[in-house]
Amino acid sequence: MKLVRFGQAGQEKPGVVDAQGVVRDLSGHVTDIAGAVLDDTSLQTLRGLDVNSLPQAPAGVRLGPCVGQVGKFICIGLNYSDHAAETGAQPPSEPIIFMKATSAICGPDDVLRIPRGSEKTDWEVELGVVIGKTAKYVSREEALDYVAGYCVVHDVSERAFQIERQGQWTKGKSCDTFGPIGPWLVTRDEVADPGQLAMWLKVNGDTRQNGSTRTMIFDVAHLVSYLSQFMSLQPGDVISTGTPPGVGMGMKPPQYLKAGDVVELGIDGLGTQRQSVRADD
Amino acid sequence: MKLVRFGQAGQEKPGVVDAQGVVRDLSGHVTDIAGAVLDDTSLQTLRGLDVNSLPQAPAGVRLGPCVGQVGKFICIGLNYSDHAAETGAQPPSEPIIFMKATSAICGPDDVLRIPRGSEKTDWEVELGVVIGKTAKYVSREEALDYVAGYCVVHDVSERAFQIERQGQWTKGKSCDTFGPIGPWLVTRDEVADPGQLAMWLKVNGDTRQNGSTRTMIFDVAHLVSYLSQFMSLQPGDVISTGTPPGVGMGMKPPQYLKAGDVVELGIDGLGTQRQSVRADD
Repeated sequence: MKLVRFGQAGQEKPGVVDAQGVVRDLSGHVTDIAGAVLDDTSLQTLRGLDVNSLPQAPAGVRLGPCVGQVGKFICIGLNYSDHAAETGAQPPSEPIIFMKATSAICGPDDVLRIPRGSEKTDWEVELGVVIGKTAKYVSREEALDYVAGYCVVHDVSERAFQIERQGQWTKGKSCDTFGPIGPWLVTRDEVADPGQLAMWLKVNGDTRQNGSTRTMIFDVAHLVSYLSQFMSLQPGDVISTGTPPGVGMGMKPPQYLKAGDVVELGIDGLGTQRQSVRADD
Repeated sequence: MKLVRFGQAGQEKPGVVDAQGVVRDLSGHVTDIAGAVLDDTSLQTLRGLDVNSLPQAPAGVRLGPCVGQVGKFICIGLNYSDHAAETGAQPPSEPIIFMKATSAICGPDDVLRIPRGSEKTDWEVELGVVIGKTAKYVSREEALDYVAGYCVVHDVSERAFQIERQGQWTKGKSCDTFGPIGPWLVTRDEVADPGQLAMWLKVNGDTRQNGSTRTMIFDVAHLVSYLSQFMSLQPGDVISTGTPPGVGMGMKPPQYLKAGDVVELGIDGLGTQRQSVRADD
């Protein structure tokens, strides 16, 4: 299934995309795409519905973030060997964990707002992993059982805030609109191998990132297992698994986003995002 | 007011502490101590209630975290000049921000569980600031208007996870039970000056930390204003503002918590916490 949340920001309804690509309204069956709705049993119940009998969402309706009530928005740093190289960093010997504020989360096509004082707002296409049931001290072998599905994440990053303004990356990762997720939460049964997904990102039509989850240093199963040694993961937590090469900071000279730019990004099978860039009010 | 949440973990009810120290049940008036309940108007309505007419909570009932539905648990690193010195770090030129997982939050007297593989679980008493209304790009002068109140936070920290296991502190700050908050959310009208609060922490009865918010490098108004430049703050967000000297890592030789220890901590006017330490299952 391709699960979505549609409607006005903060008031999204749950939905599912039918075979024709039309969004169908699930609000008669679940209150949100969030929490306990993400467990295997509940997803199986949704799978059993007659999609064609569900009401259609209005054509052109806004899509919100594909998961609601996200408790943790955990990111993995420098998880692609070739991206680590372009930033000048050594590939890490174990996963680097940082957090984005959940208040950064927005819809896949919402406006991307450059915060006041920013001169180095950068892009990062990433594979997002959505947790389906509580995971703690889980092994690598069983890790994927705890995954509800996958989505596209744009891990927008302000490099000066992240690196030049005193330690700890969260400062440059958490600005409002810095976390578009979606369009779809694609349930894990429809993703044959999360380690074989092509991914790309364009700025104003020019390709900037063109990679594959194949070059991840630590794969999804490893990451879920690893994280669960340090904290429990809950349904609806989102793990963003790192970015392939091609970020603005790695260009010579570096290039960053400015008002008026358009960013498009996508991952095979998980859909695409498109953001217009504006200066924050 | 001293607001509390009482009852079984995950099912806490809202309450208020009366003049005799008895917890009174607020669930006939608000559903939780969280979100919109924290704004000035709503708090003023609660202040107008006849406390003595409210039902008493059962004597000895468990207290949960004093705020529910926390969206962000933001911490400030090395914010006491004397603590920065004991860790060997230079005092920062601007606030260091990191995040704790909200899943680390627990009640003030809940068991503190040492995670598997930990050998360096350390203590940190901190002043917590609870946001009352959405704050973005707010000035230092108006910053305290966005604060609902204050509480004790224990920023439990695993030093090996935090420092020796590849970058970014969040890894050593986010384990389950590493974020006791409470006992009370003391509304800001009852805290004359958040920059003049004595604070202390004992391990097995021996004083380890004995400081004051007076030695903060960046005060509460500065921190709220500063954070709001990087991300919007929402009602119920908790900011933990750093710890004074006396952590285990700074002792010679370093000392860390072990199963069987008892940690007690408190801040003048904000109440006390008491945790028994056990190894995680």
